[in-house]
Amino acid sequence: MKYVTYLDTDGVARAGLLIREHIADLERGLQWAQEKGRCQAQRSFPASLLRFLELGCDAGELAAYLMEDTAWHEEPFAVPLAKTTLLAPLPNPRSFRDFYAFEEHVKTARANRGADMVPQWYDFPVFYFSNHQAIVGPDADVERPRYTERLDYELEIGIVIGKEGRNIAPENAREHIAGLMVLNDWSARDVQMREVAVGLGPAKGKDFATSTGPYLLTMDELEDVRDGDRWNLAMTARVNGRELSRGNFRDIYFSAGELIARASDSVTLYPGDVLGTGTVGTGCILELTTDVHRWLEPGDVVELEVERLGVLRNRVK
Amino acid sequence: MKYVTYLDTDGVARAGLLIREHIADLERGLQWAQEKGRCQAQRSFPASLLRFLELGCDAGELAAYLMEDTAWHEEPFAVPLAKTTLLAPLPNPRSFRDFYAFEEHVKTARANRGADMVPQWYDFPVFYFSNHQAIVGPDADVERPRYTERLDYELEIGIVIGKEGRNIAPENAREHIAGLMVLNDWSARDVQMREVAVGLGPAKGKDFATSTGPYLLTMDELEDVRDGDRWNLAMTARVNGRELSRGNFRDIYFSAGELIARASDSVTLYPGDVLGTGTVGTGCILELTTDVHRWLEPGDVVELEVERLGVLRNRVK
Repeated sequence: MKYVTYLDTDGVARAGLLIREHIADLERGLQWAQEKGRCQAQRSFPASLLRFLELGCDAGELAAYLMEDTAWHEEPFAVPLAKTTLLAPLPNPRSFRDFYAFEEHVKTARANRGADMVPQWYDFPVFYFSNHQAIVGPDADVERPRYTERLDYELEIGIVIGKEGRNIAPENAREHIAGLMVLNDWSARDVQMREVAVGLGPAKGKDFATSTGPYLLTMDELEDVRDGDRWNLAMTARVNGRELSRGNFRDIYFSAGELIARASDSVTLYPGDVLGTGTVGTGCILELTTDVHRWLEPGDVVELEVERLGVLRNRVK
Repeated sequence: MKYVTYLDTDGVARAGLLIREHIADLERGLQWAQEKGRCQAQRSFPASLLRFLELGCDAGELAAYLMEDTAWHEEPFAVPLAKTTLLAPLPNPRSFRDFYAFEEHVKTARANRGADMVPQWYDFPVFYFSNHQAIVGPDADVERPRYTERLDYELEIGIVIGKEGRNIAPENAREHIAGLMVLNDWSARDVQMREVAVGLGPAKGKDFATSTGPYLLTMDELEDVRDGDRWNLAMTARVNGRELSRGNFRDIYFSAGELIARASDSVTLYPGDVLGTGTVGTGCILELTTDVHRWLEPGDVVELEVERLGVLRNRVK
């Protein structure tokens, strides 16, 4: 399933199911299906995807019914994708941790500034907390902060937690994942470098915007590309139509399960928490160097694409 | 005013006003005062302090009425402090940023490991985001994470945001502060050191617990100890009754206004966001060294005291 959050005609953010070119509003769609006697679920769905995850809801039965035919496209709960605005799938995550889990990215970015690989990097998946209150959706503008001259993108995948847990073992982590989405961890490299020199963060180097979307894909849709605890998903980034980055999710050094185990060690993870994987190899200008592309400027269009997860497009303002 | 969150007899967290040795439940107390015609405010108060701040509520009129005499102590909305459990004043902050704004702490902690002061530290107040979902209240136990052998406390003040803002100038910052509270940024030094070596965080070095309380003091109560943009408030820490740390809030290198300006640069701050000041000079074992005190162990009682803000006591479990 593809979960989305869209803006309805009253300007309210509502959770939906994206099925081909139409969105079925989750709350209203379930109500309709229940009235038709096609969904057995007694419980209603909330209007917010965060609440939907917190309540442990599952739209599988509804999705199966709506996939059958397209008669529902004429119902009021159906919204043509082309006629609405998608917000981030989860516009208000409970928290946002970002990891640093692709070896090629870390190695190359360090080598570019003459630094060797840190041996500790291999010991555990390291992460930092970032600003979960600055989430931007697909096709939204991202404002270049006034304090940076080195704006960069980062090609990542966001893992959304769907089930509460603490001290989760890597092999049990999959049942805690609600789904995956494309994630762009926008970065101000000049500020990030100054923060890291002081030994904290990054914070202002990252906190102004993180874009995600266009949808949250549930894990059952990825079984045919799964190989053990890795998924074979090509990841690419284009700036103004020119491909700059190309990698694959299966090349992550620490598995998604290991990231979740680390995050949940002695700490509770909640539905609606988001974990970023960190940048895939070649997945940002810092790593490619400005010989390949200058830093981002207002007007630039950045498209991140992950197989199955869609294209996340944002323009720099 | 002293805002608190307490556990009522049904085990529900509710916002209150601490007046001497009694708590007046905010929602129920206002209702009572309105019925008696002693509060003109038409709007009701919510049961949660976060919601109270988000709605821009102010209990000044109610507090003034309740200060007059003690007849309300017999009403059902009055809770004797000795008969209830205080939670963190704001058990569910929207976010938590922690700064590093006391020069002595940074200098000494670095000198102890043979490192010079980083010149960039003076350029801007640096911070990191920490886990706003692991907040612990006064008198609660703090579990030593299974992964650390170097548990430490940090003597800090928490600044709670009361009014939304973006690009807030330091001289306008005071109107965005709801109040101050004592804050203990519990730290796992061994893990923190490994994370910082990789250049991100700290995360697991800090994310297992932050304690705050016992109450949130509004800024009007501090006017007589204010000197420009600083406040003269002694800060001390005791472990098992022995004083280890002594400093003063007025010695902070970057003012509270400068911290808020930094945090809100190109980013929106919301009511219920918390900003930690960072550790005051001498305010942790890392800085004092284990020659002064060994790392914390289960059974240790840590008391942080800030003049006017009270004593925050926690036991290590």
